[in-house]
Amino acid sequence: MVKRISLAHGEGGELTHQLIQDIFIKSFNHQQHTLLDAALFKSTSETLAVTTDSYVVKPIFFPGGDIGKLAITGTVNDLAVSGAIPKVITAGFIIEEGFPINELKTIVQSMAREAIHAEVSIIAGDIKVVEKGCVDSLFINTTGIGVIEDAQALQPEKIQVGDYVILSGTIGDHGVAILSAREELGLMTDIVSDCASLNHVTQNLLKKVDGIRLMRDPTRGGLATTLVELCEDFHFSVELDELRIPIRQEVEGACDILGFEPMYLANEGKVVIIVDANEKDAVLNILKNHEITKEATVIGQVVACSERKGKLFMTTPIGSKRRLFRLSGLLLPRIC
Amino acid sequence: MVKRISLAHGEGGELTHQLIQDIFIKSFNHQQHTLLDAALFKSTSETLAVTTDSYVVKPIFFPGGDIGKLAITGTVNDLAVSGAIPKVITAGFIIEEGFPINELKTIVQSMAREAIHAEVSIIAGDIKVVEKGCVDSLFINTTGIGVIEDAQALQPEKIQVGDYVILSGTIGDHGVAILSAREELGLMTDIVSDCASLNHVTQNLLKKVDGIRLMRDPTRGGLATTLVELCEDFHFSVELDELRIPIRQEVEGACDILGFEPMYLANEGKVVIIVDANEKDAVLNILKNHEITKEATVIGQVVACSERKGKLFMTTPIGSKRRLFRLSGLLLPRIC
Repeated sequence: MVKRISLAHGEGGELTHQLIQDIFIKSFNHQQHTLLDAALFKSTSETLAVTTDSYVVKPIFFPGGDIGKLAITGTVNDLAVSGAIPKVITAGFIIEEGFPINELKTIVQSMAREAIHAEVSIIAGDIKVVEKGCVDSLFINTTGIGVIEDAQALQPEKIQVGDYVILSGTIGDHGVAILSAREELGLMTDIVSDCASLNHVTQNLLKKVDGIRLMRDPTRGGLATTLVELCEDFHFSVELDELRIPIRQEVEGACDILGFEPMYLANEGKVVIIVDANEKDAVLNILKNHEITKEATVIGQVVACSERKGKLFMTTPIGSKRRLFRLSGLLLPRIC
Repeated sequence: MVKRISLAHGEGGELTHQLIQDIFIKSFNHQQHTLLDAALFKSTSETLAVTTDSYVVKPIFFPGGDIGKLAITGTVNDLAVSGAIPKVITAGFIIEEGFPINELKTIVQSMAREAIHAEVSIIAGDIKVVEKGCVDSLFINTTGIGVIEDAQALQPEKIQVGDYVILSGTIGDHGVAILSAREELGLMTDIVSDCASLNHVTQNLLKKVDGIRLMRDPTRGGLATTLVELCEDFHFSVELDELRIPIRQEVEGACDILGFEPMYLANEGKVVIIVDANEKDAVLNILKNHEITKEATVIGQVVACSERKGKLFMTTPIGSKRRLFRLSGLLLPRIC
């Protein structure tokens, strides 16, 4: 029995065929293998949402997840926050020669488990194998397609002064989990990655609440970069209250030691929501009823701004106000 | 002016934002940047085809193309041979720290040019940067979505003894072009890669000819592996005539010197078609009218086979018949 991936596994011949049969078809439980070069699916809506992401997280196994789970949740969440119902996902693997086949199996099964949980089908895939030293163990690209049933569900053009900014839980958990998994940093914490699929939560919100203007998952670049982008792209300004931003003590502690700023650390299972002031409580009630968003809270409000280009501000505990910018320069590579 | 990709370009902050604006948005000519985490598109059919591929070709520039052009043609062709009309493509880049920005620009522009030619839109993308030594220069994943307007256009279940096997042109050109670009092999030829988008040809065929049973592009694993897979998956047997398989003299020469078998070398702009005997001439006429398929010819026929599992045979110039199998073991890594 072969225990490691060889270059021949990526050549499209006999070994590729066996690998696909033994690991992928079984794990992804393909009932109906179309045998075509492309997979087919029926769309229930004419408007579709599409997103793509490559995952290069290091290490590939970390507290709370692995690169496989992350590749599903990350792509599911990009669709979910865009107001789509995620339906199908493709998975492209680039694997280093010598990679242990049992680890590949673990990762593929982790993807399969999360896909079932998020109710998406992994319908097409690809495997490439490159020589030792030409890729760092394993990278995964996932591309997701979702259907948009109500194109008016999100209305960023209605954002107005007084709208609330709600965050679904603590920030920085994923970033610190990755740091602690990189043992060379000598950091030991109990923090696990928050990586989780948010689509059931977002679908519930969009079904039950009118007045959700925008949603976004604050991943790479963290909460600060995400909000700066939204402010600039959609021309509104936000004032955050530093005291209201939920951060676990261990995350704060780790950041203090290592010199990181939690506002810029990646999250992989959080959503930030801009909502009509009248619907704030409805949103909070729904979020508090889902396990992964039960720590949801209001963190700020849309404020007046004299310029067209929106800005992000944060009021500190002593009452001063500072402007926040996009992440600039290098913080933490290979976080997702 | 920054000349090389740095890790910060992949962190989702200010530099990522600039890179996307300067290179991707401009080259891909995004008229309507949705500003959402997912791109939206309207489907003209409820049946969609989806395919994904990662491109790790080495070197990234080769005679007749580059990794960017290949990433578009390869994904367009997988949709095309499945009977779909390619519509949208996503592009995920994994880039090595230090990669020259002008080379990235060349590759992105090459993708843009081929996308225009193939009439597909590149609607979503992702950039990850990894440390020097953690990826070999640059890998691209493309995922394509196409619409299937007539689900009955391909009818593999009707394959019968006497059906013809047509090949759209010479084999092995891409494989030998890559070999010659890897200068260390000391091989000099004038052969250029055949990489080309086949969708206009396949759409024309499906519109004008009834009786096309199956199409496939013989890429990784070559013509032999592709036909063995079709025979096994769809339960029919094929007898090829070795003398009828078009191979350029330079390709044959290079294979003789290096010990490669052209039947197993990758092609990136060829299609093999199984067609009802009555429609053979109609298919050939159409193929001969397209520049990239003008050397099309019949290479074999579907033959009777006693077993359910189909087999591939080839009659040699001296009249003997030998069975061909899938590519087994290692031939030529990083061909696409």
